[in-house]
Amino acid sequence: LSLSQAEIKRLRSFSTKKGRRTAGLFAAEGVRLLEEALNSLLRPETVYYAPALLAERGLTLVRQFGSLRVKTVEISARDLARVSATATPQGILAVFAAPSEELSQLYRPGMRTILVCENVSDPGNLGTLCRSARAFAFDLVILVGECAEPFSPKVVRASAGAMFGLPVAVTPLAELEAFVRDKGFTLVAADVRGTSSIGDVVATVPGSRLMLAVGSEADGLSEEVLHLAGHGVRVPHETCVESLNAAVAGSILMKECYDCARRRTV
Amino acid sequence: LSLSQAEIKRLRSFSTKKGRRTAGLFAAEGVRLLEEALNSLLRPETVYYAPALLAERGLTLVRQFGSLRVKTVEISARDLARVSATATPQGILAVFAAPSEELSQLYRPGMRTILVCENVSDPGNLGTLCRSARAFAFDLVILVGECAEPFSPKVVRASAGAMFGLPVAVTPLAELEAFVRDKGFTLVAADVRGTSSIGDVVATVPGSRLMLAVGSEADGLSEEVLHLAGHGVRVPHETCVESLNAAVAGSILMKECYDCARRRTV
Repeated sequence: LSLSQAEIKRLRSFSTKKGRRTAGLFAAEGVRLLEEALNSLLRPETVYYAPALLAERGLTLVRQFGSLRVKTVEISARDLARVSATATPQGILAVFAAPSEELSQLYRPGMRTILVCENVSDPGNLGTLCRSARAFAFDLVILVGECAEPFSPKVVRASAGAMFGLPVAVTPLAELEAFVRDKGFTLVAADVRGTSSIGDVVATVPGSRLMLAVGSEADGLSEEVLHLAGHGVRVPHETCVESLNAAVAGSILMKECYDCARRRTV
Repeated sequence: LSLSQAEIKRLRSFSTKKGRRTAGLFAAEGVRLLEEALNSLLRPETVYYAPALLAERGLTLVRQFGSLRVKTVEISARDLARVSATATPQGILAVFAAPSEELSQLYRPGMRTILVCENVSDPGNLGTLCRSARAFAFDLVILVGECAEPFSPKVVRASAGAMFGLPVAVTPLAELEAFVRDKGFTLVAADVRGTSSIGDVVATVPGSRLMLAVGSEADGLSEEVLHLAGHGVRVPHETCVESLNAAVAGSILMKECYDCARRRTV
């Protein structure tokens, strides 16, 4: 029931980027979040749980992981608090192998809608954008520039489990440029100075192969990405507010892409 | 140039709810945020600034406050760090008288669209919802239940300054019920089990007097508010994701109300 010092150190290391990169693993915590993992293709390497902290719903989840042949390890509430990245641990923590972030490995020819995030450094915004991307049927997320790390605890939490089911590639800008050109995608930039309506743009995209690019909260997209984009779109709103939250603006635009696609297939 | 211990203590007290309530004041920090205050009706009581931390844009802002006869006090970077609620202070902090939170004082008969937040306890979500409310021309925000405190540093920051220009009432549920009935508003509930489309609902609201209610991230709206609502609306999305982020869902619904209102006036 007691974790060794080495194991505690290993589990704690996943709260840092260096620790996650070195091990090729990441951790996620909480009953709701890990229920989402159960619904995805990603299987944990190990599930650690403290029965004293879990209600029936949590214990059921542990049994479900067990029946999928995932290794489940009972630990004390005290040890769980030691390895948790949160102030109030919920009683369950799972360790996963980090998925590939290679664009060439993640891309599949059938993919039609892709979200590009550039310099989205706030983990809450990045997680929220991934959650909306999955909700609005985007097939892939590509991160360029200085984004938050996709499998950090805050991003995983803000994604509400979307990270378990959504391929996320991290790629240099030069590779993105080549990708857009080679795969025949139309890149649409979320831009407060944009003049097109997302609905009008989506209707004209050849083969519905659309990439939507969202930039940083403070500065929007870089000149390079704006230049690469065929269209700049904005969400119309009152001018008393300079801009919307980046995750809100991106989500609204994804939602409109989703609505257009649904209208087309009806 | 040096703040007294008493003044430092006073300014630090605004980072707690008790301190803000006792003094009837709140503090906001940062150049971008306080530029928004300059564009609003809310005037600071005092602006504290550390020239060593400010670039030209910040110094210009200080001069603009000065020309509006706001008291500006130069302090050392060290003192600013002492009173700041952030890890990396930006060089300017302003103290404001907290606006009224009384629904009866804030409501004006010309108001047409109102956002209701119930148990929105995450300050980032509450601030983001207020930012979107202002962007999408909502006239008033009403908080019921256990919401984050509207003038806490995190809410003010997440609102990107919307709090300076948006009336925010805090009220018991019973008063909300009486208000909806007496003022002839139609209350629409954001509800994952909702069956109506927001566009269809908005089109039928008498006199366009619409209230949109958004609930907590974890549990949605209470039975009481759902019961009070004439309609339940949801944002259609893929079922692989249980729900959208509360601020995203609320913002999307507000955006659709805004679009409907614009179409009607065109």
